[in-house]
Formats: sequence, C-alpha cells, structure tokens
Amino acid sequence: MAEFRAAAPDQAELLGELLEAGLLIASGVPGIYGRGETFEEVRRAVDDLVTRTAAPDAAEQLRFPPVLPRHQLETVGYLKSFPHLAGTIFSFEGGEDEALEQQERADRHEDWSQFQHMTDLVLVPAACYPVYPAIASRGPLPEGGKFVDAGGAYCFRHEPSGDPARLQMFHQRELVRIGEPDAVASWRDSWRDRALTLLGRLGLDVASDVASDPFFGRSGKLLARSQRAQSLKFEVSVQIAGPEPTAVASFNYHEEHFGEAFGLELFDGRVAHTACLGFGLERIVIALFRTHGLLVEEWPAEVRTELWGS
Amino acid sequence: MAEFRAAAPDQAELLGELLEAGLLIASGVPGIYGRGETFEEVRRAVDDLVTRTAAPDAAEQLRFPPVLPRHQLETVGYLKSFPHLAGTIFSFEGGEDEALEQQERADRHEDWSQFQHMTDLVLVPAACYPVYPAIASRGPLPEGGKFVDAGGAYCFRHEPSGDPARLQMFHQRELVRIGEPDAVASWRDSWRDRALTLLGRLGLDVASDVASDPFFGRSGKLLARSQRAQSLKFEVSVQIAGPEPTAVASFNYHEEHFGEAFGLELFDGRVAHTACLGFGLERIVIALFRTHGLLVEEWPAEVRTELWGS
Repeated sequence: MAEFRAAAPDQAELLGELLEAGLLIASGVPGIYGRGETFEEVRRAVDDLVTRTAAPDAAEQLRFPPVLPRHQLETVGYLKSFPHLAGTIFSFEGGEDEALEQQERADRHEDWSQFQHMTDLVLVPAACYPVYPAIASRGPLPEGGKFVDAGGAYCFRHEPSGDPARLQMFHQRELVRIGEPDAVASWRDSWRDRALTLLGRLGLDVASDVASDPFFGRSGKLLARSQRAQSLKFEVSVQIAGPEPTAVASFNYHEEHFGEAFGLELFDGRVAHTACLGFGLERIVIALFRTHGLLVEEWPAEVRTELWGS
Repeated sequence: MAEFRAAAPDQAELLGELLEAGLLIASGVPGIYGRGETFEEVRRAVDDLVTRTAAPDAAEQLRFPPVLPRHQLETVGYLKSFPHLAGTIFSFEGGEDEALEQQERADRHEDWSQFQHMTDLVLVPAACYPVYPAIASRGPLPEGGKFVDAGGAYCFRHEPSGDPARLQMFHQRELVRIGEPDAVASWRDSWRDRALTLLGRLGLDVASDVASDPFFGRSGKLLARSQRAQSLKFEVSVQIAGPEPTAVASFNYHEEHFGEAFGLELFDGRVAHTACLGFGLERIVIALFRTHGLLVEEWPAEVRTELWGS
C-alpha cells in the first residue's frame, strides 16, 4: 500500500468540518469521498465558469471516461515519471472453482488478489491523456492547430492522504491546446492570466509560480529540476490548510512529448506541440469554503454573482 | 482476459456509423469510447430530463466517484454474483529497481503486472452502491425513509463487446429508495410507469418485463430463476441493434440485502428495504440516434422539445 500522508492539524480540522457539514461524505478510504448537494452545486458552478471563459475561443468539447487503454499509458512513459501514482485495472480470470474460493476469501475480507489479472485498462491519471490519440487519429492538424475542452473528468492518483485537498479521485477540468510551438506557448501565457483573473474574482488569494511534478525516485529529482529550469510547468496556488499553499490549477507545456508519442502532425508535417491547463475542481471548491465559510448563502455577493449570475 | 463478444452485423454497422459521425471516439479497447460534442449534449439532456421528472419527489442529490472501497464490494457479496464483471484497482509497490524494471517492460508493452498490488479500491459496478453505506452512517432512517438521486455516475463492467450498446464504462443514472417495504415497493411500481412514459415520449418503442441479472456460473442460473420468480428485477427495453432488444433502464428490488449488509435501520428498528432505478444513459442516447437518425436537428420536433424545451 502507498504510504498514508497524515494530515496537518488544520487539514484534519478542515476535513472534519467538511464532513460534519455534509459537503463531503466519508467512504472509509482516505481521499475517496462522496459529494453532498451544496458541494456539487459549487463544483458545477466553477465548471460552468470555466466553460463560459473558454467559450469565445470555440474549443471543441470532447469527453472521456475515467479509464484509458493501458497501451496509451505505456506509450507516453507515465511509468517512468509517476509509477507510484498510477492505478491499473485488474479483473477475474478463472472458472467456477476459482470464483468460489475468491468469494469465500472476500467474504472474510482476506486476500483474493491472486485471482485477479491485469486487464488492458488503467485509470486516467490526467484528463488530457485521452485527447492526444483522439486528435491524432484524425490525421494532420489544420493550420492554427486545435483547442479541446475535455470537461471536468475524474482522474486517479494513488496518494492516500488525510488532507481533504489531496484526493485519490478528483475532477480535473482540463483545456488542451495542440498546434504550432508559438501558438501553444502564447495560448498557455494568455490562459495563465485568464486563470488568475477567474480565480481572483472568486475571492481567492491566488499566486502563480513555476513548479515541478512529483516525479518518482532519485532520477525524478533531475526531471523536476529540468522541468523548472525550462519553465515547463506553472501552478496557481491558494493557501487552504497545511504549511504550504495548495495548487488549484496547473499549466503544463509538453513540447513534442505527446506529439511524438501519438504522431500528432502539424499541417506542414512537423510534430505538433501540446500544452494543457487543468483546474483542480475539488481543490477550488474546498478553497472557496475555506475562504468564504461553509454557508454558501453567506458568501460575498460578488463571488455568488461570479458563480451563479446576479 | 474476459472473452470478447463479437458484434452482430447490425451492431458493428451501428458502431461504425457512430464513430464515423464523431458521436463516439474509438480508444483502441472495445467498450471504451470518448464522447463527441453532440453525443454529450443528448446525454446531458436525458440526464436533466430524469432530474426534472424526479424533482417533485425532492430526492436528495448525492454524488460519488467511480471508485469504491474494496471492503464494501466484499460486504455486499458482489463477487458471489458477478465475479466476472468486477474491476479491481492495483498499484505499484516497490523501490527504484522495481520501478525501473516495470518501466522497461511497459516501454516494450510487455507484462508488468507482477509489480502491481491490490489496493483497497475497486471500480463502482452500479451507481447505487456507495449510497447505502453513506445513508446508513447517518443512523436510523426517518419515518417514510429516504429518496436519493445519485446522478449519472460512471460504472464499470468488464465485458468487452463489439456492440456499441454494451460499454465497459458507462453512465448509470441512478435513483435509490430506502425505507419501509411497502413504501419501497410502491416507489418502484410508480417509477416503472414514469420511466416508461419518459422514454416513450422520447419516441422510443419501449416495453417493460421481468428480468434477471447475468449471474456467474451454474449457481448463477438458480439465482436468476429465483430473481425472476420473485419479480425482483424489471427492465425497460428498446430494439437498438442485434437479435434482441437492449435494456435501457432497470429496476431492482433488493429487499433486505443492502439494509442488512450496511445496517440500514428503519425508524422502528427494523431493517430497511431498498430498491433502485438505473437509466443506462449511453444506451438511451444510442437508442435515440438509432431511432431518429444521426442528425439531432432532424429529430421529431416533439422529441427535441422533450429534451431541450420548445
């Protein structure tokens, strides 16, 4: 089992408040929660706000399930960077005897893993992953490339934690840009400003900075340094609970990584560059409750107007 | 690997049309598809139609992620009935050496399952499953019980198929009733009528009948017979493609099964009964495209009005 990250005292207190108010619903596994009615209302409102902000750019709406072909995860090299975070899907293989033994062990809550075998599916680790092969399958991109809105999709990261802002299964609201290097870079810069404005108008005290991914192991430290040195990742962070601010949105410039992996080709035959912007919807919702209090009807009028109109 | 069910010729043709029109997007794994813009518009409209139909009954809105504690799957005995359909989540355990070997095998698309170990999570097999422990944790039910709208949640069934109406990952739009036996039975009967009306007004040629679940193995045949004899399951079916109609909605009366498993207690101390109604959203959407054609703007005006208002 992955190591459980204990909550800081104020994170534990916040989780207790969210559960007590029925905003989150405990499942028995840390980082896996149900969502109450009000939590979902706020989450949907933030989701819609991103949709409205992106609408003038006429992004194509595509939606994907929370599972992905294992072959794609292998192709993009996810297991080099984040072996500790991936979730793979196993299922039963066997006849009636094996099924019976499996069931009897499961009834006693004992180990029945030996009857489970790897399938050709894994959990989606980031909402943009299915977008690249889907767009690549259409052939060379038109001039100017492509802007895809992948919606608010459930993603999985195997990192059980007592911090309510670090979920194992969460909605990543993802926008994806695929195209010429210049177009992709300027898209990322303009959306960093838009994201800061969007979150700032919700009354969140946001700051953006160069960041790095939580790469695995010793070689991961090098990857992280290189990522920072090239400014390939930016995060927008808010102080929620715990000793440090929490990232609530993240911009990743992948250069040719996905283009090469999936054969994304520009109109002129070059490999396409890609970038994505992911809003962590549950983190934003929790930041709103932390900042403005647990009663939505008492939130500042201007924040309510941003979310639900006047 | 689970056995692949080949498509009937008209199912293969339908899948080809849906892919060609961009309504579904191939992933490379049968039963796993992305959804295009128009497909999602219809799916959301059907989802909203169910919400509007349920609204007068003031159901409590709860939402759950597509993963569930493994302990709950064990507790409800899912592996007795459907070992072949369950998906379990595994993840990496090991140090840098194991990670490196795993990655090298994955790069070559070879078997890396030995580095993966069972976690405490499984995929949600039916959208109602997380509802029962969540409601049970609140203590005894109020008189009259409880009506929960669990929304349109992603569910997993490991049954790869060439039939576009048999997905491995799909949205089940689930309503759940928990309470006294009489109240639950009459809820189910009234909703069977409402579901037939709702789907009929969408221009679908629906019929409802007693049905049984696809229980595993020889003993499963007995379970299925008993389920039919007691009329515990009804399905609403539509002819989509293939030799038989496809179930697009399903009513299950669980009697005391979930109540006993999770300690759901009535106001008077008796074990609560439960029933659920699940709409298969993708199946309904595909039935609509099959019945009315691939161009939504050419659908009958009365169907469009039902879905999107006048």
